[in-house]
Amino acid sequence: MQELKATKEIEIRFSEVDSMGVVWHGSYPLYFEDAREEWGRKFGFGYMDMVEHDFYAPLVDLEFHYKRPIIYGMRPRVEITYRPTEAAKIIYDYEIYDTRDESLLTTGHSVQVFMDKAYKLLWENPPFFEQWKKKWEQE
Amino acid sequence: MQELKATKEIEIRFSEVDSMGVVWHGSYPLYFEDAREEWGRKFGFGYMDMVEHDFYAPLVDLEFHYKRPIIYGMRPRVEITYRPTEAAKIIYDYEIYDTRDESLLTTGHSVQVFMDKAYKLLWENPPFFEQWKKKWEQE
Amino acid sequence: MQELKATKEIEIRFSEVDSMGVVWHGSYPLYFEDAREEWGRKFGFGYMDMVEHDFYAPLVDLEFHYKRPIIYGMRPRVEITYRPTEAAKIIYDYEIYDTRDESLLTTGHSVQVFMDKAYKLLWENPPFFEQWKKKWEQE
Amino acid sequence: MQELKATKEIEIRFSEVDSMGVVWHGSYPLYFEDAREEWGRKFGFGYMDMVEHDFYAPLVDLEFHYKRPIIYGMRPRVEITYRPTEAAKIIYDYEIYDTRDESLLTTGHSVQVFMDKAYKLLWENPPFFEQWKKKWEQE
Repeated sequence: MQELKATKEIEIRFSEVDSMGVVWHGSYPLYFEDAREEWGRKFGFGYMDMVEHDFYAPLVDLEFHYKRPIIYGMRPRVEITYRPTEAAKIIYDYEIYDTRDESLLTTGHSVQVFMDKAYKLLWENPPFFEQWKKKWEQE
Repeated sequence: MQELKATKEIEIRFSEVDSMGVVWHGSYPLYFEDAREEWGRKFGFGYMDMVEHDFYAPLVDLEFHYKRPIIYGMRPRVEITYRPTEAAKIIYDYEIYDTRDESLLTTGHSVQVFMDKAYKLLWENPPFFEQWKKKWEQE
Repeated sequence: MQELKATKEIEIRFSEVDSMGVVWHGSYPLYFEDAREEWGRKFGFGYMDMVEHDFYAPLVDLEFHYKRPIIYGMRPRVEITYRPTEAAKIIYDYEIYDTRDESLLTTGHSVQVFMDKAYKLLWENPPFFEQWKKKWEQE
Repeated sequence: MQELKATKEIEIRFSEVDSMGVVWHGSYPLYFEDAREEWGRKFGFGYMDMVEHDFYAPLVDLEFHYKRPIIYGMRPRVEITYRPTEAAKIIYDYEIYDTRDESLLTTGHSVQVFMDKAYKLLWENPPFFEQWKKKWEQE
């Protein structure tokens, strides 16, 4: 199976940095979310695809490991990689790199489960995701 | 040693919820941060205390485990507990409860290290923190 | 006609202030929005009431006049007042006060128009708002 | 005098849009702020230039006029223009355009005053700004 991976360059907002020019740790969920959307567009499994197929995929776990600060003026790149699992979950790993010297700034991961439109937890993958897995995980 | 614990009720902003009234996962760093500040005020170890003593304590790890969604209209309570460690770190555990029925909504933890004013990592606790530990950890 | 007015105390987030403890100007839309929701709850004309009656009321004008800074530790109070108009619009005036000495910190106003579910501009008030006006503006 | 103008393309965050894909009105202060920073870089009058010369320029007025919604997927462009004035103020006008068809989405303006390091209002322009004006306004 190929690695299902996308990359997203992030533009740091002036409002996201403190007086020393360091990005506030609470901005990273935005960066990971933008990376998930980019991944979703690339592999046909974004937020709108889920809504169309009548399910949601809320986050249940989210982790950040800050290796080096992100500084205003950097143009960091998020790499997001899909981690296959047997469970009815979507798991991603994230790495943020400084595009100038390719040093690793941040790692993290997220886990999502499935819920139907009535916000009931699904213990099995929704049919749309099963089809998606057949297509992508077996290539 | 007593448990060094603080609690902080959080007011959910209308802008923090999606169209179903569910709090966006990216708002939780705010809630944890507010809890840390509350803890700092209570135990004399807040952001301004650090700045006064010429060091910073940036986050290096941050984790969220979302058990149940926080819904607009709830008045959730964050409980933050200091976890003593031998390492030159500050570790907190967090639990968010629904104040209506005391059900557990979220857990998490954070790890901070120390840096001097020149943003150099400190491998030993700054003197101010050592004094603080003597006072509080031995009571 | 009585003045249709609501008040909302705001809790300042630690993340909303800069290194000098001053609230970032971009946080004020949150405060005004929370005030509108409070007003909506009080007078039966909130976001959910609109959604139920199949219309939206997007902002078209929004103004802030910053008289004095809001400082971390303050507990400011927003006063929101409905300004009756013949036009198919909702207009509010806002004043933010420091609850300690009642000094005026901020003024502002907002104008909303009406759109149907297809996001088409309505040139006349939706029936629900006409009924609301009959009830409240004539008391 | 030439027109002192800068442009800034903005990248819309997924977290900034509601369930219909429309950008939340409270995100626009971010866009205007990013445009001011871009302008400051271009004309040597940014946030860091002010800090170096020991003054601040807090906002006192901020206005938004929302003509058409900004939709997720657009790549809007902010145009910021400096408006010369005799008063000890900095005034900017803003226009946001859809880069696809050049339609006008938003207009606005902001007014800033000057404060010294002790947060005292300056009734005259700081020397650095006077020099800046000589250089740029007379070309």
